Amino acid sequence: MARSVGSAESPGDRDALNTGQVYIICDSAVSGVEPKAIMSGTQRVVRWYPPAYDIRVEDAPIPQIIDDDDAIVKVILAGLCGSDLHIYRGHEDVDRDLICGHEIIGEVVALGSSFCPDSIGRPELYSTLKVGDKVVSPFTVSCGECHFCRIGFTCRCKHSCLLGIPALPGGQAQYIRIPKAGGTLFSLNSHHVSSSRPVPDLSTLSDSSLLLLADILPTGAFAAIQALQHPKVAPILIGAKYPFGGFVAHRVTARDQTSVGLQAEDRILTIGIVGLGPVGICATVSLLDMLSGLAESQGLVYQIIAIDPLESRRSKMEAVYDTIHSGGKAWTGRFAVASIDDGKKLSAEWTDGAGCNAVLEVVGNNNALTLSYEIVRPFGIISSVGVHQEPPLPFNGRGVYDKNVSFDFGRCPVRAMFPIAVDILLKRQDVFGSVGEKASLIDKIVPLNEAPDAYEDFDKGRCGKILFDPWR
Amino acid sequence: MARSVGSAESPGDRDALNTGQVYIICDSAVSGVEPKAIMSGTQRVVRWYPPAYDIRVEDAPIPQIIDDDDAIVKVILAGLCGSDLHIYRGHEDVDRDLICGHEIIGEVVALGSSFCPDSIGRPELYSTLKVGDKVVSPFTVSCGECHFCRIGFTCRCKHSCLLGIPALPGGQAQYIRIPKAGGTLFSLNSHHVSSSRPVPDLSTLSDSSLLLLADILPTGAFAAIQALQHPKVAPILIGAKYPFGGFVAHRVTARDQTSVGLQAEDRILTIGIVGLGPVGICATVSLLDMLSGLAESQGLVYQIIAIDPLESRRSKMEAVYDTIHSGGKAWTGRFAVASIDDGKKLSAEWTDGAGCNAVLEVVGNNNALTLSYEIVRPFGIISSVGVHQEPPLPFNGRGVYDKNVSFDFGRCPVRAMFPIAVDILLKRQDVFGSVGEKASLIDKIVPLNEAPDAYEDFDKGRCGKILFDPWR
Ligand SMILES: [Zn+2]
Ligand SMILES: [Zn+2]
Ligand SMILES: [Zn+2]
Ligand SMILES: [Zn+2]
Repeated sequence: MARSVGSAESPGDRDALNTGQVYIICDSAVSGVEPKAIMSGTQRVVRWYPPAYDIRVEDAPIPQIIDDDDAIVKVILAGLCGSDLHIYRGHEDVDRDLICGHEIIGEVVALGSSFCPDSIGRPELYSTLKVGDKVVSPFTVSCGECHFCRIGFTCRCKHSCLLGIPALPGGQAQYIRIPKAGGTLFSLNSHHVSSSRPVPDLSTLSDSSLLLLADILPTGAFAAIQALQHPKVAPILIGAKYPFGGFVAHRVTARDQTSVGLQAEDRILTIGIVGLGPVGICATVSLLDMLSGLAESQGLVYQIIAIDPLESRRSKMEAVYDTIHSGGKAWTGRFAVASIDDGKKLSAEWTDGAGCNAVLEVVGNNNALTLSYEIVRPFGIISSVGVHQEPPLPFNGRGVYDKNVSFDFGRCPVRAMFPIAVDILLKRQDVFGSVGEKASLIDKIVPLNEAPDAYEDFDKGRCGKILFDPWR
Repeated sequence: MARSVGSAESPGDRDALNTGQVYIICDSAVSGVEPKAIMSGTQRVVRWYPPAYDIRVEDAPIPQIIDDDDAIVKVILAGLCGSDLHIYRGHEDVDRDLICGHEIIGEVVALGSSFCPDSIGRPELYSTLKVGDKVVSPFTVSCGECHFCRIGFTCRCKHSCLLGIPALPGGQAQYIRIPKAGGTLFSLNSHHVSSSRPVPDLSTLSDSSLLLLADILPTGAFAAIQALQHPKVAPILIGAKYPFGGFVAHRVTARDQTSVGLQAEDRILTIGIVGLGPVGICATVSLLDMLSGLAESQGLVYQIIAIDPLESRRSKMEAVYDTIHSGGKAWTGRFAVASIDDGKKLSAEWTDGAGCNAVLEVVGNNNALTLSYEIVRPFGIISSVGVHQEPPLPFNGRGVYDKNVSFDFGRCPVRAMFPIAVDILLKRQDVFGSVGEKASLIDKIVPLNEAPDAYEDFDKGRCGKILFDPWR
């Protein structure tokens, strides 16, 4: 039954939809795939109970389509993420139990009635997505149709909702309901790739590698791109004196009266990364990828200082960097992995005391912000993607004025970053394509019933990133 | 005696220079103008005494050239500025008396030995500036030769020094010594304008209008340009979804999968200005100028909400806006001058509740920052040029993360902004070209001996911007 959005419905129809008991699947969308008969059963889920540290694996009803724009996705893999620990530790003021998890890759098993060939003018997946398609979901819902979605700020969609909260059960489960699925989901099937451009073939990639698209790789790429696109970095990248790198100032006719132009040493870009957890490593790999492109096209020289207090994280970062190097295409910049003290020393030594042009803050606490501020130079940028909590920012007005510092705070618009993240994922399978090896971002894949141990180990820093296979 | 920098000098020469008793004027630089014989006398100056509110007009020695790169400038006009009030009120922790003032326009009366035709590879004024030339100085020294100067971040020059502090006597005086003058000064004479481009003729402009270049017009333009060049504003200006407006992301081949592109309503740019003192008015006029250019070339629609709690400042802003309107070229955007409450209301009403895309904060206290934060939308920018003091920033980590807010803090690199500010000054003589009229930024020009009253009136908000004529 094909039905376009906004068409007249009888109250009976609407009630039936809202009970969640009846599926209305677009005939064309199923395209030969039998509607699954699993919908009325139960599934296994990872559930957190307040106040903290209480993770249980339980049975729960399989989620139902309750809105025309919903999709039900059978979870192939679900990630355990640093943000899950905020809830685990009871830091998010949640007083109800919830099904955990916001990072999933899966397969579409049911679609609401909005998914029809005649869904014209809506996000294209409403007319092309099919039951059986492989998809990745960002960790927040985004409709694809409001102002914030249209402009690319998808994490602030008017319908935004985090996956894995009481109002929207998460993905550490066998099934998950995705609202506004035509705007939220990203299809990994090649029939959703434009034929007019080179087609990235995602079918060759491992599920564990694709799972990184749900959060941490786009978030890392966002941290990097916020810094590299900032107008205070533009003079270094393009060799034009501030503020003439932007399109606002190009019409000016008066002269500067200084004949001293930019010199080679002014074109050295020094960037610090504070925090080398999985997102920090993704940020570093993204940064290296973007900078190597710019070094080729713009003659840029760069220096990267990747900082973490933990030896285990530094080793992982070093192994990832070695993998990249042995992968054939060498980076032409300078690169160091450093403890906090060494990082401070290097950021001064490598810059004649000036400090870093930009710092990517990928931790989410005030120690990390303070360190970032300490090593950033005047007119530098702090690109902060760490998930921060209640404490006041550790800065005062006179300090930020005297340093001419810029800050970009906040959540990654994952859905808008997908094309860029997919690009990096394809290029860097040497880093992202493995599990459990020295340079792997993902330590292991475990069954759902190991969730209580996995949370505890992850919380205590005894392991790196873990994925759940809910069918094992 | 012509001498290039770094040439051998006898210890005797150097000692003579450093005593400040002997001038070594480049022969070619004086070019027919007699070296003045005024140098050993005394002059009238405005002097501040700690702890606060103590302004006296006194005699003081005429400043001497003490370094090869110095210039002595005879002050034509000196500004009284909001920043002077920080010292006046004793908020700057200064425990010594000082000669006040950081905004001057004047005439070169003596030059150090670095000013020679053979000053090759240095800022061009070292080889072209002459005694008798009319100049404006930014409120900080900038050498024009260090990394920060070369890249355009001139207010963070390695030799940076504020005018009007104990270490560098200010410009509310008859003469002032400008260090690193070939990098710091901007010549208003047309022989310093490139012949290969249209020549802005500054000779027609009034001295009071040119004085605005020393600080407040470039600072206002900087506030505007920081906002307009930010990558989070780029999607609105150029109609490309974030993050694809920058040059980093353009190589990506994967598809977005959303067919819903930017619509007309997404191309409406709403900007708030918090604070309508002289700098706030300069920021607003600069913004209107830049936006009208963009509206023509990019099809942009804009809305501006200029906010101040004081009725007198709002009236001034309205008079300035009316002047612009009656000047022939009408602005095509929407414009309102508003109280704080009305400003909040409008920023919601005009944006369907989203808030402003960017806010220019031109006050320098936490109330202004808090208001800016309140009216800025998620993924918005706060461009803060207010001079902030010791209090901690009034923001917490969770808030800035959840709002995806960006901040650009700090001092205007006035020297780097000169070409843009000159451009605006030339175009907007209808606003900047008068004194003491309803729409004038400058209320009056008074003799130095009225300084005690002028400071008190300005501090109490009983007048707008005042200039001193030290020869009246
Ligand atoms: Zn995550
Ligand atoms: Zn949306
Ligand atoms: Zn000033
Ligand atoms: Zn300098």
